[in-house]
Amino acid sequence: MKSFSIGVDLGGTNLRVAAVTPAGELLDHVSLPTRLGAGPHAVLDDMAAAIRQLIDKQRGDLLGIGVGSPGPIELPLGVLHHPPNLTGFDGLNLRTELERRLERPVQVGHDAALAAYGECHLGAGRTHAVDSLVMYTLGTGVGCGVILDGRIWQGMRGAAGESGHGPIIPDGIPCPCGARGCLEMYASATSIVRRARELGLDPPATHDGNGSAHFSASTVAQFATAGDERALRVFDEVGLALGLSLAHLVNALDLPLYIMGGGAAAAWPLFAPRMFATLREGSYVYRQSMPRDPGVFEPGKTHVAPAQLGGDAGILGAALLPLAARATASA
Amino acid sequence: MKSFSIGVDLGGTNLRVAAVTPAGELLDHVSLPTRLGAGPHAVLDDMAAAIRQLIDKQRGDLLGIGVGSPGPIELPLGVLHHPPNLTGFDGLNLRTELERRLERPVQVGHDAALAAYGECHLGAGRTHAVDSLVMYTLGTGVGCGVILDGRIWQGMRGAAGESGHGPIIPDGIPCPCGARGCLEMYASATSIVRRARELGLDPPATHDGNGSAHFSASTVAQFATAGDERALRVFDEVGLALGLSLAHLVNALDLPLYIMGGGAAAAWPLFAPRMFATLREGSYVYRQSMPRDPGVFEPGKTHVAPAQLGGDAGILGAALLPLAARATASA
Repeated sequence: MKSFSIGVDLGGTNLRVAAVTPAGELLDHVSLPTRLGAGPHAVLDDMAAAIRQLIDKQRGDLLGIGVGSPGPIELPLGVLHHPPNLTGFDGLNLRTELERRLERPVQVGHDAALAAYGECHLGAGRTHAVDSLVMYTLGTGVGCGVILDGRIWQGMRGAAGESGHGPIIPDGIPCPCGARGCLEMYASATSIVRRARELGLDPPATHDGNGSAHFSASTVAQFATAGDERALRVFDEVGLALGLSLAHLVNALDLPLYIMGGGAAAAWPLFAPRMFATLREGSYVYRQSMPRDPGVFEPGKTHVAPAQLGGDAGILGAALLPLAARATASA
Repeated sequence: MKSFSIGVDLGGTNLRVAAVTPAGELLDHVSLPTRLGAGPHAVLDDMAAAIRQLIDKQRGDLLGIGVGSPGPIELPLGVLHHPPNLTGFDGLNLRTELERRLERPVQVGHDAALAAYGECHLGAGRTHAVDSLVMYTLGTGVGCGVILDGRIWQGMRGAAGESGHGPIIPDGIPCPCGARGCLEMYASATSIVRRARELGLDPPATHDGNGSAHFSASTVAQFATAGDERALRVFDEVGLALGLSLAHLVNALDLPLYIMGGGAAAAWPLFAPRMFATLREGSYVYRQSMPRDPGVFEPGKTHVAPAQLGGDAGILGAALLPLAARATASA
């Protein structure tokens, strides 16, 4: 019988719940569709039921419950504000609603921050023995989490880590957030597909005839790997955008590690060369502290590397969250 | 007889030493020219002599000695690396050299970080009851200090707060740091003068016939205040540059306060309108948390404001530095 905590990853498509040991071992997990159409209370009921199910199965010492949510979420309060990926959840207090259902305390965090937190303590941060890092998650949007001295830097109201909306190209592509030239408009999976289409890369027909729906960032990556000039240009622009954003963060924070996760980070070999070139050009702090080989870790240097936990980073980080709260409470 | 600490502000032109109470009262101070021509050891001898003189005069309980230095300075080590404003100091270990002369421990920090630290605890941060802020110092260059939860965030090697070299305009004006479009190339006092000249604003002849040497950022500000279109455009560009840099930092860190200090910050009324407009456009985090009136403080909102301690911010921050070290050691 092991002690464990529960981590929850609330996404716009799937809802995942896991039982995790303090060492990061995933004991069990449940994945179900997020029933957005049924409304937020149905989703919360599903979440509470899945959590109870895992707790009952483990029968160990429950250390706490952590939930990662898409933003914007006001922290530490736990209230969602017009979350674009959770239609109908505006104004919902995720924390208190779940605490009421479970009759237990719940910790809530921003999904991108929890992915960074998981990577820091169980993934790339642990591998390289550093406790400060920034993680970019290249998915539908570009999420970003900031970990300083082992703790999530969530900012005054939980809005830290919105570097996906940093205006890297003034007067650049308009972003739904209202700004122009945001990182997200160049480096998200969505933007990779949009930009490929703009450059005339047409989706191939698939066996079910539904080509457009299957034209994803990984399709564009396949074209690029096969040498398609348009697809290569798309990833070159991804690298430029990430390099500029990194230059800002490296100069502002001087951290030992910056990592790239999320689905589109799989295209690392395609965007990394331009990303490193742009970072070298744009940040003298990086030039003064870059490793001889960007792929080889040197203690005391500034590193940019792929994330290591794949799709589990967020749920593992969520499970770690209540452990930190316990440590603080007992300190 | 009061307990006090010593703060030192080592500049490329002047060397200032002050005795300061823990509450920030400046008891006494000495200012002398930095004898760069005589070499770093002569400057260190001058500094040590001035420190001893103040200690002897106060005859109170000396709490510690803090020194602020221009960068790049590797921290916590205290070694200078090719500091552009301290010719001949490359490779010098400021901390150990001064400790050897004084036979006492010395704390060393980056001047821009110490100005931010002073403002946090004794200036704008105290006024507004916040303990996290970023301070930009608009001088010969653009310095930047990051204070998180009341402590200096110095980064892995002391290079945090180099946002003056954040590439806000990709492919913009080349900077001596090797990058293009750095904030410093638009918002420093030096850049204000350079840009005014580029726009055809000629220095007025002064009574000593030495017009060019007296053409400073404040001269440009006088022209702007008098309605000169070229001078107004210069400060509009300063505001644009600061607004873009702020948008990056607000999105990344979500702090309650960002302040502008240094000589060129006196032109606040000239650059603030464009700065706020750019920040509103470029950061949805700011739009969600901006105060109704940018000049009126509202708890829980994001504020951008002038610094409050003037030229004393750095020396006061330096004097506070050893007090924090004592608090940590006794905790």
